Amino acid sequence: MSFGWTSQASDGAARAGLLRTAHGDVETPVFMPVGTAGTVKAMTAGQVRATGAKLILGNTYHLMLRPGADRVELLGGLHRFMDWPGPILTDSGGFQVMSLAGLRKLDEDGVTFRSHLDGSPHRLSPEIATRIQHQLDATITMAFDECTPFPAAEEEVRRSMELSMRWAARSREAFVARPGHGQFGIVQGGVHPELRARSVQALLGIGFEGYAVGGLAVGEGQATMFATLEVTIPLLPPDRPRYLMGVGTPDDLIESVARGVDMFDCVMPTRAGRHGLAYTRFGKVNLRNAKHATDTRPLDPESPCPAARDYSRAYLHHLVRSNEILGMMLLTWNNLAYYQQLMSDMRAAIAEERFQDHKVETKERWARGDV
Amino acid sequence: MSFGWTSQASDGAARAGLLRTAHGDVETPVFMPVGTAGTVKAMTAGQVRATGAKLILGNTYHLMLRPGADRVELLGGLHRFMDWPGPILTDSGGFQVMSLAGLRKLDEDGVTFRSHLDGSPHRLSPEIATRIQHQLDATITMAFDECTPFPAAEEEVRRSMELSMRWAARSREAFVARPGHGQFGIVQGGVHPELRARSVQALLGIGFEGYAVGGLAVGEGQATMFATLEVTIPLLPPDRPRYLMGVGTPDDLIESVARGVDMFDCVMPTRAGRHGLAYTRFGKVNLRNAKHATDTRPLDPESPCPAARDYSRAYLHHLVRSNEILGMMLLTWNNLAYYQQLMSDMRAAIAEERFQDHKVETKERWARGDV
Repeated sequence: MSFGWTSQASDGAARAGLLRTAHGDVETPVFMPVGTAGTVKAMTAGQVRATGAKLILGNTYHLMLRPGADRVELLGGLHRFMDWPGPILTDSGGFQVMSLAGLRKLDEDGVTFRSHLDGSPHRLSPEIATRIQHQLDATITMAFDECTPFPAAEEEVRRSMELSMRWAARSREAFVARPGHGQFGIVQGGVHPELRARSVQALLGIGFEGYAVGGLAVGEGQATMFATLEVTIPLLPPDRPRYLMGVGTPDDLIESVARGVDMFDCVMPTRAGRHGLAYTRFGKVNLRNAKHATDTRPLDPESPCPAARDYSRAYLHHLVRSNEILGMMLLTWNNLAYYQQLMSDMRAAIAEERFQDHKVETKERWARGDV
Repeated sequence: MSFGWTSQASDGAARAGLLRTAHGDVETPVFMPVGTAGTVKAMTAGQVRATGAKLILGNTYHLMLRPGADRVELLGGLHRFMDWPGPILTDSGGFQVMSLAGLRKLDEDGVTFRSHLDGSPHRLSPEIATRIQHQLDATITMAFDECTPFPAAEEEVRRSMELSMRWAARSREAFVARPGHGQFGIVQGGVHPELRARSVQALLGIGFEGYAVGGLAVGEGQATMFATLEVTIPLLPPDRPRYLMGVGTPDDLIESVARGVDMFDCVMPTRAGRHGLAYTRFGKVNLRNAKHATDTRPLDPESPCPAARDYSRAYLHHLVRSNEILGMMLLTWNNLAYYQQLMSDMRAAIAEERFQDHKVETKERWARGDV
């Protein structure tokens, strides 16, 4: 069982392919629901599977703090712990340390920080982050990197990128190769084409089973993000999967696939679902809005997802206004199902070489709205 | 389609029967999950059905405040609104007015109060409560009564009971008979046998499709509750269903069925599930307890419920400690499934005339615990 990605079809820069792993195959382009702390929030694992999701993401930072990597390992790994026998990608914790942890102290070797839960001291380094992901039994391990602040002076971005590349080499060194498992390097370099190119060169010199683009969707704006993808993606090897980390809206996804990205993760569909927002073929619907109070239509009568099909907007509005858990459950379910449908529609369009038309039609439908 | 209950088997005072309604048949003894505000909290209607539940309860007080009875009626009634085509019993709002609402003012005609949500003024009377339940499309409508405070002087209990009996007559007058629908009167009288007997006489004089025992499980203690049941239940007609309102623990249920009760509702399994408590064949399990942190056993490997069978206690412990919504979902699911199993095991034991033995065995298993 060897880990690897093979192309199945392409249309312009957009690619459809198959990722083979020890825990099952995954068709790309793929969206990974985020299972932060051992659960995709407000969903059972069975419901997540039923949306069509094949690959999910787990957060090293959250899991190392609670229940702890040793505990998850003792309990048989993250797959068994959370009832997800399929493939799991774990991030390395670098991003969450910068966004959540307290009292961070960065040095050449790694970073010391305090837990946002109880203030307890912890340390991550390329070696520690790689070992923890091994303990979690990650199908795909991410290299440990520094999350470069944005905005930052070019010199600061360069320093951060170069540190991340030294950490990438140490992460690779620490990675224990196992059949069907892989490790991805992360391209950094902010919005600077030359730094991105140098980062790609550094990672190719090390060699990974896949390549991620990090440090985007951090406030630079969509146009700059796409411009950065356009100078970065073509430098990546055509036979390896490409993962745009932490992205994004449905529009981000379709435009990034158009630029050659294969993999995505984002808390948006799950977080939005807990705040009364539904993603649909007809754009975003804010169920909190009073105009839905007597609307007997479901979110999308043609959806295969029961949450989109079997409940009136009036009922969803009532649940959201009443802060009922079921409202969060149904909207999260709807959103994950829509994201999966979005990806599978893109795969079909690539296979049929009509991706550009499909993109235009999809964006027109979003723009028309559904009132 | 006529509404009614028929006995199928009995064993001592315990009875098994079939309740026929316009929205489907219900085997008794039956436990009704509480769907307060148009949702059994943290469960989809499909999941509630999958536990074996056939009949659920809706709260007039909550629904009249939000989304409002007119709104629910406009949207096609509560069955359609919350995706529950099966039978629904609605309470009359009397209990919640006393326990939740602000600035209550009681008079002979009814009660004026302020919403606990936004302070808006509202009124309930026998006529209004009956009309609202009609608008909700309740399969079983409850008479409007005063929730007698506990403890209270016997004279105060008598005054309250007599008011509730006058309100029962007005509720009956206001009830619009429809095929397959019924209305239950509520026996009051606190812990005083003579007042309970007078209340039963008053209700029988009016005539209802079923009879509820109200005003228990309000702090009088289990022994007093059973003593009150023992003097009340034998006075009720043998061919009508008997409903003990707001009760209770698994032990309350099995002991009350032994005394001839057919129907129950309680927030306990759902509320406990949101607070880390699991009901099982082996008693109550507090998943928050540290002893579960590395326990790989499921709650009950022989349960037909996935929540009881497919997740380790260590995982449930992690979810509860992390305040994850999935923890509430799984424990609510487990608890409702256990309550349904408890009832169906009781029905089988009554049919096989081994209820007393079954009761002893069940209570021994709870007492042994499962450590």
